[in-house]
Amino acid sequence: MSNISNPDTAQVLIHALPYIQKYSDKTIVVKYGGNAMVNESLKDAVMTDMVLLSLVGIRIVVVHGGGPEITDMLRRVGKQSRFVNGLRYTDEETMDIVCMVLAGKVNKELVQNLETRGGRALGLCGLDGGMIHAERFQVEEDLGLVGDITSVDVTPINDALGKGYIPVIATMAGGPDGAIYNINADTAAARIAAALGAEKLFLLTDTRGLLRDKDDESTLIPLVNVSEVPNLVRKGIIQGGMIPKVDCCVEAVRRGVHSANIIDGRIPHSILIEMFSDEGIGTMFL
Amino acid sequence: MSNISNPDTAQVLIHALPYIQKYSDKTIVVKYGGNAMVNESLKDAVMTDMVLLSLVGIRIVVVHGGGPEITDMLRRVGKQSRFVNGLRYTDEETMDIVCMVLAGKVNKELVQNLETRGGRALGLCGLDGGMIHAERFQVEEDLGLVGDITSVDVTPINDALGKGYIPVIATMAGGPDGAIYNINADTAAARIAAALGAEKLFLLTDTRGLLRDKDDESTLIPLVNVSEVPNLVRKGIIQGGMIPKVDCCVEAVRRGVHSANIIDGRIPHSILIEMFSDEGIGTMFL
Amino acid sequence: MSNISNPDTAQVLIHALPYIQKYSDKTIVVKYGGNAMVNESLKDAVMTDMVLLSLVGIRIVVVHGGGPEITDMLRRVGKQSRFVNGLRYTDEETMDIVCMVLAGKVNKELVQNLETRGGRALGLCGLDGGMIHAERFQVEEDLGLVGDITSVDVTPINDALGKGYIPVIATMAGGPDGAIYNINADTAAARIAAALGAEKLFLLTDTRGLLRDKDDESTLIPLVNVSEVPNLVRKGIIQGGMIPKVDCCVEAVRRGVHSANIIDGRIPHSILIEMFSDEGIGTMFL
Amino acid sequence: MSNISNPDTAQVLIHALPYIQKYSDKTIVVKYGGNAMVNESLKDAVMTDMVLLSLVGIRIVVVHGGGPEITDMLRRVGKQSRFVNGLRYTDEETMDIVCMVLAGKVNKELVQNLETRGGRALGLCGLDGGMIHAERFQVEEDLGLVGDITSVDVTPINDALGKGYIPVIATMAGGPDGAIYNINADTAAARIAAALGAEKLFLLTDTRGLLRDKDDESTLIPLVNVSEVPNLVRKGIIQGGMIPKVDCCVEAVRRGVHSANIIDGRIPHSILIEMFSDEGIGTMFL
Amino acid sequence: MSNISNPDTAQVLIHALPYIQKYSDKTIVVKYGGNAMVNESLKDAVMTDMVLLSLVGIRIVVVHGGGPEITDMLRRVGKQSRFVNGLRYTDEETMDIVCMVLAGKVNKELVQNLETRGGRALGLCGLDGGMIHAERFQVEEDLGLVGDITSVDVTPINDALGKGYIPVIATMAGGPDGAIYNINADTAAARIAAALGAEKLFLLTDTRGLLRDKDDESTLIPLVNVSEVPNLVRKGIIQGGMIPKVDCCVEAVRRGVHSANIIDGRIPHSILIEMFSDEGIGTMFL
Amino acid sequence: MSNISNPDTAQVLIHALPYIQKYSDKTIVVKYGGNAMVNESLKDAVMTDMVLLSLVGIRIVVVHGGGPEITDMLRRVGKQSRFVNGLRYTDEETMDIVCMVLAGKVNKELVQNLETRGGRALGLCGLDGGMIHAERFQVEEDLGLVGDITSVDVTPINDALGKGYIPVIATMAGGPDGAIYNINADTAAARIAAALGAEKLFLLTDTRGLLRDKDDESTLIPLVNVSEVPNLVRKGIIQGGMIPKVDCCVEAVRRGVHSANIIDGRIPHSILIEMFSDEGIGTMFL
Repeated sequence: MSNISNPDTAQVLIHALPYIQKYSDKTIVVKYGGNAMVNESLKDAVMTDMVLLSLVGIRIVVVHGGGPEITDMLRRVGKQSRFVNGLRYTDEETMDIVCMVLAGKVNKELVQNLETRGGRALGLCGLDGGMIHAERFQVEEDLGLVGDITSVDVTPINDALGKGYIPVIATMAGGPDGAIYNINADTAAARIAAALGAEKLFLLTDTRGLLRDKDDESTLIPLVNVSEVPNLVRKGIIQGGMIPKVDCCVEAVRRGVHSANIIDGRIPHSILIEMFSDEGIGTMFL
Repeated sequence: MSNISNPDTAQVLIHALPYIQKYSDKTIVVKYGGNAMVNESLKDAVMTDMVLLSLVGIRIVVVHGGGPEITDMLRRVGKQSRFVNGLRYTDEETMDIVCMVLAGKVNKELVQNLETRGGRALGLCGLDGGMIHAERFQVEEDLGLVGDITSVDVTPINDALGKGYIPVIATMAGGPDGAIYNINADTAAARIAAALGAEKLFLLTDTRGLLRDKDDESTLIPLVNVSEVPNLVRKGIIQGGMIPKVDCCVEAVRRGVHSANIIDGRIPHSILIEMFSDEGIGTMFL
Repeated sequence: MSNISNPDTAQVLIHALPYIQKYSDKTIVVKYGGNAMVNESLKDAVMTDMVLLSLVGIRIVVVHGGGPEITDMLRRVGKQSRFVNGLRYTDEETMDIVCMVLAGKVNKELVQNLETRGGRALGLCGLDGGMIHAERFQVEEDLGLVGDITSVDVTPINDALGKGYIPVIATMAGGPDGAIYNINADTAAARIAAALGAEKLFLLTDTRGLLRDKDDESTLIPLVNVSEVPNLVRKGIIQGGMIPKVDCCVEAVRRGVHSANIIDGRIPHSILIEMFSDEGIGTMFL
Repeated sequence: MSNISNPDTAQVLIHALPYIQKYSDKTIVVKYGGNAMVNESLKDAVMTDMVLLSLVGIRIVVVHGGGPEITDMLRRVGKQSRFVNGLRYTDEETMDIVCMVLAGKVNKELVQNLETRGGRALGLCGLDGGMIHAERFQVEEDLGLVGDITSVDVTPINDALGKGYIPVIATMAGGPDGAIYNINADTAAARIAAALGAEKLFLLTDTRGLLRDKDDESTLIPLVNVSEVPNLVRKGIIQGGMIPKVDCCVEAVRRGVHSANIIDGRIPHSILIEMFSDEGIGTMFL
Repeated sequence: MSNISNPDTAQVLIHALPYIQKYSDKTIVVKYGGNAMVNESLKDAVMTDMVLLSLVGIRIVVVHGGGPEITDMLRRVGKQSRFVNGLRYTDEETMDIVCMVLAGKVNKELVQNLETRGGRALGLCGLDGGMIHAERFQVEEDLGLVGDITSVDVTPINDALGKGYIPVIATMAGGPDGAIYNINADTAAARIAAALGAEKLFLLTDTRGLLRDKDDESTLIPLVNVSEVPNLVRKGIIQGGMIPKVDCCVEAVRRGVHSANIIDGRIPHSILIEMFSDEGIGTMFL
Repeated sequence: MSNISNPDTAQVLIHALPYIQKYSDKTIVVKYGGNAMVNESLKDAVMTDMVLLSLVGIRIVVVHGGGPEITDMLRRVGKQSRFVNGLRYTDEETMDIVCMVLAGKVNKELVQNLETRGGRALGLCGLDGGMIHAERFQVEEDLGLVGDITSVDVTPINDALGKGYIPVIATMAGGPDGAIYNINADTAAARIAAALGAEKLFLLTDTRGLLRDKDDESTLIPLVNVSEVPNLVRKGIIQGGMIPKVDCCVEAVRRGVHSANIIDGRIPHSILIEMFSDEGIGTMFL
């Protein structure tokens, strides 16, 4: 930065003007995860982006999972996980740890980080105001307290946005039986974005985006129409860990979100760069 | 209940009318702790009381600590506590556990319990919207991340009350350095009650109230003027664990709360009984 | 009441919780008449019920007729009534008396009774803000100033509810010619309930409800679907003075009121008992 | 009118403009009584004035007594009045008649008259929303239910004005004992005008105003400063039935009403003429 | 006026009542031009009418052109106009003069005139808030900056009305290229009236209205249904300078304005006379 | 700009964050004049800055004079100016030209320029809503329609800001006699800034700011406390054309504006540079 002069500063701001105009008063949901949530300096960059976007009149909603910190905590309390067909069985004790890490650690650190940067943040979870309801995930073998979202009520999120807060949301869900359920954070973000009528859903990942050749970052596909997805899966271009990410983008777009972007959380300020330049980075699903 | 007839039901409701009128639109802060937070059936009774009071037009705010669950969790992760003059030193690792239990476990269970009973609850903590700020507690020997409240901003609580939620508040505080501090939940409750201009602060405890003879529950002192407190301390009537409870009541009343009550959380529905009968239970500080 | 302990009090309140939740923010119209309007202690019970329901967040509207007091006043001024096919002819002098008793005596006593009990009441009549318009009742022989409702505008009632008042409504109507018309209070209550989108219409009567055998109170029919009414009339189960009451209930339900109840005004607090217990009393039309 | 051409019509409206501007958004209280309340064509003229003033943006409040109709009704029911030192003793039966005539006859006829002319009127009485409280008038000999105003709460009047209604107020008062009290309508009007912060109080009377020589209408005193009143009483210029009228004007002005006018209700449209001409008619107290 | 007595004044006001009621809260657009804009005393009369109508609760919008003052100014700066098929070619220099006269002279004089009479006026032009957009008028030969209206957004007008101002509108339009376009003021008034959902559009002209025989004012046609217009054109009754005026009325009515009136601006207070009498003056298109 | 990479873009935006936070919801008045109003590319830069600042939540108000365009227009119409003690005498004809250029040319071009860039602008002048009142300037010899500001009512400006517009204000004033007065635009800007409780007043000039040695731009005085001004005048550091500019800054600060800045309008985006960097440019008066 030191070699950017004041007139350049002005030019950059003026250059950003049409993008700010484009997103003014629009709702943007950021699914926050991966390296950008673990690496402290990347985390600081994302949080600063959130405060900036909120300040220029964009309605920012942060949705997060718990990432490796849940695994770490389970290990610390010596909890042995049982796996069912490769999926972790969530018993009550595990759910307790999930809750504590999600809503008591990750969520509060994000809120405090935003507040320290001058943002006004409000930590919420899927239980507040009955925001997310789920039922027991119906698969052949029981997975315990793993939930399938049955309804999303974004009233508490809109209440917070309406009062000028940046809502930061930990994705647990309440069950019909009063129990608390573990749900997939990407799916929750897609459903919340749709229910909010969001303009955009950003999925922060540890990849450049969707690559035609997964070993060559220069083969990035910048734009995908959701109708092309089945074909891309057939061709093996969408595969492995990318499948649930893409599914989540497709879900969001199908339910009315204008676009969903898989972007690289390893690049500092990737959200700002994506929103404030014409080229963009990562892959956008329309 | 089975032997209370319908006409009696009507009579009880009618009997409650003047009390409902008295507290309508008033703010009541409940500092929730002790047995009432551990025993499941007592917890259910308190939560039901909160939903009922909220429904009849009383602005209910629940403030809670973490009680024995923090100790339990520290033990589970094998964290050895260092004690300084008998006080637990709060290092970062301990603070992490405190946060997780307070905001990720106790707070969420209360929110979910209230929601299940038809209440509309919103889980908050002292970090949200910069609600509670603290600085490092200044004593001779360093206690780590133990904080002294420097300011309380109840805007997020009023925002939640204004939208019809029951705010449930975990009492951590943000420090000037961005760190999260552990603060005394009773003191936080007193400060919040004062800042809200509350009508009443209830401290749920495991005692009948203030007893003239601590071994004889029949010597309960129903009413204490805060000006009499120093004298009662001198006489040894206020002593031991009762001292911080009473201090908290005095703090609340001095800062403008109309009355502060120490009541017995071991009696089911003790809050309802206190509010809806003339005799009352426990000790009221005016 | 003296033998209901404090814990029982709490139990009763808790027992009422789901019912309060059920009706919260809903509109309930009470057509007040019969013994409950004549007997002072019954009147006090009804008024207390109104204040209680209003306080717990239910939008209560009281509609009343003039009952025997009109006859009494006519007698006192020595007014001879002319009858047409068994119906009283309403000349201008009679209408004056009707107005005075309805809006100047009954209405004001109810308002004052509610105010004395801590309710906030506003006495209205069908003329205020053009609430009820009627035209001359078209029957073979002229009945004078007996009116047939042509339109109902509940704006003044909603204005009063919106400001937190319990509207108490005397049922006269304005005619196109500027004259004041006498209208049937039961019909007016049904029309008002429908126009308000009310959840419930209560008709306070001097009977237990609809009885299968009119001489045996144990044959009470608790629930009637309005489609069964013609059949019940054919069978003679609905007959005599019950016919207009039932017609009024049918009218309300047909126009969108969720349910209409004929209940026994001779039982103190019958409305509370009906609303706050599962069994209910009287007959509900759905 | 027939000889006033269209251009003259325009001139008159233009001539009225500065007067309309002067009173726009101001509150005017009209104490309505005397001949203007008995004579049908005068009544129609006053009611039309009220509708017009309301329509051009003036907040009009009508306060009325019962005049000769109360006496008439007492006579019709054969009620013998007992007099105490020349004042009528108000027993409960009398009070009932007063209420019925005031709130059930006069008030409703005025509301209906205004509605018929396209005004939006709301009939209120001193009991509604606890508007006027009184206690038993303390004189040597008991006068029964004659009340002395202890407090005036104009919230219901402001609620009605805020919703665009012309409030028409019958002046009974509620007592601490739940009884309804008879109060002086002029005094009530003065108190209401003061509590509303009214610009003007009009007292419609059957005189030209205050006359220097009571037998010579040409000696009308157009303007009196309230400080001159004692002197005018001493001189005998204010005497007899004029004394309570003047007292009422003084009371209003002393409590902050900008001016109080005694005007001649026998002149059609006297209020319009007073408000929309420079000369004015009647006597203004400042 | 001097020979109109006070009672006559009252009569006139009362006579105006139903007309005020009829237009209360309605929107009236006045296209102001012709002699009424040139002659000072006529201008004063129109402005006074606007203030009066605004004060009695009518939403008044004034739309004006520039009349002869533009020609005068062009002459003063020695600007030679080029004519294309008889139409003046609007080059940039001409457009500058048009703007200055319209928005800088005529508009400001009207605003100041209204303010001086106690009205609250706000001068607007078609550029403010993007109110009127136009594109280059497409005719065989280029007319320069003569625009064809493409869209009208009355948000700024409604904002001004909502805050109690009389909007006074100079009719320029913004083009897609950032240039300012000259548009026909009559057409603009019609489009604005339609977009506002106006009750009435008044076109102030220098004629009595539509005359059956153009040399005989007694042959005024008071009422024309827009469907009759083609026939009247065929018959030569609508001809010459009247054609664009009538087209503008037809446009307004076709787009939903209730009625459009061509009235004689040479008669002082013609708008008041038209609105406040049954006969009316001029020609009304329905 | 072409050599500023996307990551640099992000850095610049992040760098701007604390400045945006600092001015969020604050009011900034820009007195626009000098070269920045004549040179098209400088004008575009200023207008873009206004749109950007408005978009990031700053309440921007533009106040402008007429600069050389008035002189130019006077010349074009061949108007000879009479000078009184070196000051131009403003006769009615001159005032007409001033009005036309200010409100009809400069103002409208600014509004259109802002609208074209996506801003929402509203052109106002000192006459709208009675914003600025003035009386004839009292000096020994009459200056004609030169006015001295007597009152400023910023209601119309706040109305516009509240609806999201950028108010652009031409500084004429209304006189008590209905005449339009020419007032000093700098003084008007200072008075408007004070009445709005503005955070900042920017005066765009053709100098670098206040220079200790007027021939050496490196001697810029960045910060002046208004109490030092008399001393700086005595020393001859404030002299000539700088005196009225400084007086205007002092006036603004004395009346409560937080700071007033003389900045160099010849530098593109000087306002952005001043607001979004620590060093700032120009001279700030505190």
